[in-house]
Amino acid sequence: MTTSTIPIKISTKAIAQEFLDKYDTFLFDCDGVLWLGSHLLPSVKETLNLLEESGKKVMFVTNNSTKSRAAYTKKFASFGIKATQEQIFTSGYAAAVYVRDFLQLTPGKDKVWVFGETGISEELKLMGIDSLGGADPRLLESFDPETSPFLKDGLDPAVTCVIAGLDTKISYHKLAMTLKYLQQDGVKFVGTNVDSTFPQKGHILPGAGSMVESIAFAAGKKPVYCGKPNQNMLNSIASVMDLDRSRTCMVGDRLNTDMRFGTEGNLGGTLLVLTGIETEERALQKSDEYPTPKYYAEKLGDVYELTH
Amino acid sequence: MTTSTIPIKISTKAIAQEFLDKYDTFLFDCDGVLWLGSHLLPSVKETLNLLEESGKKVMFVTNNSTKSRAAYTKKFASFGIKATQEQIFTSGYAAAVYVRDFLQLTPGKDKVWVFGETGISEELKLMGIDSLGGADPRLLESFDPETSPFLKDGLDPAVTCVIAGLDTKISYHKLAMTLKYLQQDGVKFVGTNVDSTFPQKGHILPGAGSMVESIAFAAGKKPVYCGKPNQNMLNSIASVMDLDRSRTCMVGDRLNTDMRFGTEGNLGGTLLVLTGIETEERALQKSDEYPTPKYYAEKLGDVYELTH
Repeated sequence: MTTSTIPIKISTKAIAQEFLDKYDTFLFDCDGVLWLGSHLLPSVKETLNLLEESGKKVMFVTNNSTKSRAAYTKKFASFGIKATQEQIFTSGYAAAVYVRDFLQLTPGKDKVWVFGETGISEELKLMGIDSLGGADPRLLESFDPETSPFLKDGLDPAVTCVIAGLDTKISYHKLAMTLKYLQQDGVKFVGTNVDSTFPQKGHILPGAGSMVESIAFAAGKKPVYCGKPNQNMLNSIASVMDLDRSRTCMVGDRLNTDMRFGTEGNLGGTLLVLTGIETEERALQKSDEYPTPKYYAEKLGDVYELTH
Repeated sequence: MTTSTIPIKISTKAIAQEFLDKYDTFLFDCDGVLWLGSHLLPSVKETLNLLEESGKKVMFVTNNSTKSRAAYTKKFASFGIKATQEQIFTSGYAAAVYVRDFLQLTPGKDKVWVFGETGISEELKLMGIDSLGGADPRLLESFDPETSPFLKDGLDPAVTCVIAGLDTKISYHKLAMTLKYLQQDGVKFVGTNVDSTFPQKGHILPGAGSMVESIAFAAGKKPVYCGKPNQNMLNSIASVMDLDRSRTCMVGDRLNTDMRFGTEGNLGGTLLVLTGIETEERALQKSDEYPTPKYYAEKLGDVYELTH
């Protein structure tokens, strides 16, 4: 898990330039790296512009499955950052790519039952894969097996897969119907991401993993997770773009998701920024629980500020 | 786990009489033993009357935490069965007894945050222990940490324990607030029962355990479970009544909850009835996964029918 070298701090012009020269592709986590909630971090826009002007490929990789990539482009635009849908990888999109490319669901034939928000079903729809459940408002009604509209004509036999992620409108109707589909023989179980919690407005709130694990416990089935640090996310990225892993760097604010994701994915580099939840002490401390990053920086913007 | 003897089938008058003579106290699971949903099973009322006339003590022990004991007496009454509140042990009541007698919460001072239905908070109230959360309708509103009425004045420092059980009106607000309290130092975590699912109207639905484990995963804290087969349930029963374990028999329809509960509790006897989910084949099959019952019967009512 750990690498043998001491992380290099991006603290001089020479190191920043060496860092830029080493990689052609940069994968960025978003919250804690580019912004904190609704506040853009300093010199982020300038750093991204610098990468674009230098002909680097840039991808944004987030475990947030509640928004589609299309919705995410609006968040980027609100900060004045240009980002196309093709540059954005959410765990919901990764799950959709996984069921299409790895489970080989047939668009127009196989259907997916979704436990989660619109960020999953919208991505499936773009692939021509029909989904049920998700944000259907009828799932907010009390559940009674004798009156549920989802059981009236029996379960849909076209459903061959369940995708589950974070749903801040969780209901018993959703949980019960998701379990019903998972009780069917051969129905596959995919989780967007295993994060037990996520930070919001200074609070630590229940994350996707807490819901997926609840469903897994009821169903007695283990999910395949798609988000970071699971390599399905990286494999999904590699399945939609050319990726020279040795010339790719993962940039993130968490040692045991982002840095693990890059290290286990055999990427050429990893950069930990200290604008999220990690400290310099943790970055430098060797541990069996998380990998050591190759580089670290006080903030992403240092890459721009040191070279200009 | 397994006992060395072959289960005795209650199939003759002599065996039924021997069974009755061996025990002074009978602990009954309810659903699958006394009734199936809203249908009373044959000769159940006669069997319970026989026990009462013979001076036996009878207790009803259910993992259902959604109803209080007071509410349960009404269910018994609807079948024409006399049962006092003192004869009924729900997992919600067991959790309340556990926090009072084993965690030694002080009524009037310590408070409990409840994730679950009214069957938990009503039992706490009878003990003089105040609770928050539970069925409070404000928890059905969308959660926003900046507007939640439960966070407006900060967390209540009097809360020293969380009890979690089945809540068929689960909401993100409930999950988020339960997590907030569990993130406080020293706050204890009690689960009503670990059942991952429960049967209802021919469907297998998500059970208390699936919700408690979701909360546990988010909080990174392990709960203490109170319901069957956990011995906290039996210890709670023993803390409110005299119990000669060698002269007590557990009657139930599940090998790995009811029969395990009686066997691990060193009760003198266990009786498996085949009106629930188990079969004669499973009753007779030795397994490392569940204990062998001492007796088994096609139905509880055979005890009466064979002796009359």
